[in-house]
Amino acid sequence: MAFTAVRPLRFGDCDPSGIAYFPSYLNLLVGVMEEFFASIGSPWPVMMGERRISVPTVRLDITFSHPGVHGDLLEFRVDVKRVGGSSLDFLHRITCGETLLWSAEQRVVATDTDTHRARPWPDDMRAALEQHLETSNV
Amino acid sequence: MAFTAVRPLRFGDCDPSGIAYFPSYLNLLVGVMEEFFASIGSPWPVMMGERRISVPTVRLDITFSHPGVHGDLLEFRVDVKRVGGSSLDFLHRITCGETLLWSAEQRVVATDTDTHRARPWPDDMRAALEQHLETSNV
Amino acid sequence: MAFTAVRPLRFGDCDPSGIAYFPSYLNLLVGVMEEFFASIGSPWPVMMGERRISVPTVRLDITFSHPGVHGDLLEFRVDVKRVGGSSLDFLHRITCGETLLWSAEQRVVATDTDTHRARPWPDDMRAALEQHLETSNV
Amino acid sequence: MAFTAVRPLRFGDCDPSGIAYFPSYLNLLVGVMEEFFASIGSPWPVMMGERRISVPTVRLDITFSHPGVHGDLLEFRVDVKRVGGSSLDFLHRITCGETLLWSAEQRVVATDTDTHRARPWPDDMRAALEQHLETSNV
Repeated sequence: MAFTAVRPLRFGDCDPSGIAYFPSYLNLLVGVMEEFFASIGSPWPVMMGERRISVPTVRLDITFSHPGVHGDLLEFRVDVKRVGGSSLDFLHRITCGETLLWSAEQRVVATDTDTHRARPWPDDMRAALEQHLETSNV
Repeated sequence: MAFTAVRPLRFGDCDPSGIAYFPSYLNLLVGVMEEFFASIGSPWPVMMGERRISVPTVRLDITFSHPGVHGDLLEFRVDVKRVGGSSLDFLHRITCGETLLWSAEQRVVATDTDTHRARPWPDDMRAALEQHLETSNV
Repeated sequence: MAFTAVRPLRFGDCDPSGIAYFPSYLNLLVGVMEEFFASIGSPWPVMMGERRISVPTVRLDITFSHPGVHGDLLEFRVDVKRVGGSSLDFLHRITCGETLLWSAEQRVVATDTDTHRARPWPDDMRAALEQHLETSNV
Repeated sequence: MAFTAVRPLRFGDCDPSGIAYFPSYLNLLVGVMEEFFASIGSPWPVMMGERRISVPTVRLDITFSHPGVHGDLLEFRVDVKRVGGSSLDFLHRITCGETLLWSAEQRVVATDTDTHRARPWPDDMRAALEQHLETSNV
């Protein structure tokens, strides 16, 4: 199964025209990513703090299909599409009920938290990501 | 000339790994867009509040090339690439000194602030955008 | 019982010195307030959108006692201290385990969403707030 | 003279009721504080990064007097009120034209960026703060 997380669209995430402020959507997305990594055994405080592995975003292609409004219950669906040597490709789909609000293709890269240079995935993280890749696309 | 704006990368825009938090970059970008529209005669409080014209983003393709660090002086360069019936395509390039930190292709659409439906650019805005398009690419 | 809500302290809520960025704490607090109002029968999309009642903050006195760090599980405890004609006083206590991280006294005022002028609480909201006041301090 | 800084109230700083979202005000305030410290010779990237001195907030008492609206030009006025052994008290007044929108008393404490423990102001920072204190209240 794909990883999913639910977030209400809060007052503070909306703009004066009454719809979601897109930078707030991306702040929510980063929180969902953090939850995804915890779900595969790599909570960020340990991963970044102790193991010194960060996962900055290098590509992000977003399509906003339908405006989200204050009070919407957002479901984030996270699919792993590809695990590279030090990269990782996601597909995100954010829906409210049956309506697709926005979707995003995202590439993150494993880096050393101190030097910000790319580094290979450690074996345990690679194994967890590949297992997620296989089982979530069944 | 292209439109440009300078922003320091603040403490509050950076994350625990010491580099720019990308949702904060996008919050800065929206502020730069607001400044761009003011520069062509359409300040948002009037455009959205009185004329009821909003410009939500429908596509955003971002490439993060180099991490920004606290204290960097960011130069945002905004180029208009195309003016459609109700759409508008931008190319953004964000540099620190000679280094390209990130770039983005963005499409916004003119909508009615109340119904969130697409609407054509009013003549004065179209004229200002087309004039910017011609002169900024010389 | 007082109203409580749990929030993980996310990567995106922390600053380059590795601790909670206080404006992000306050963004979380507003989300908890939204959840509190929903719990007493006044979800904000209806309260603000249909009934045109807003609850802006007029006073906020905060004491930060202990730094929060990425990964902390924050418990927000909300106590109603006083219901005035159009005002409402809260005491917030935010703990991680046994440790008090910060606390805040907050006064909000019921206003008309359109004019931003103070207005009396409607009877149903006053009744719900007073019931919460009585039962939460037992 | 007191330190002052001007900020436009941006679209992204406002909420669905059309007025300033107060956590965004505080994000702006932190940026103004960063500018204040740079003005007295302690830019934060050097102060925090190299000298390992942070200035977390321990008290913040805010009064919101008048709602700010999208497009307001905010003037932040920063006054140093007291320089303690490791503490520093500010008074902030944020106006739009002649109207006071909000004010805040803030206490920050000099801490070691690594241990988060209080430490005395170094001599150069104390001298700069005391000079500011004297000259700004004349």
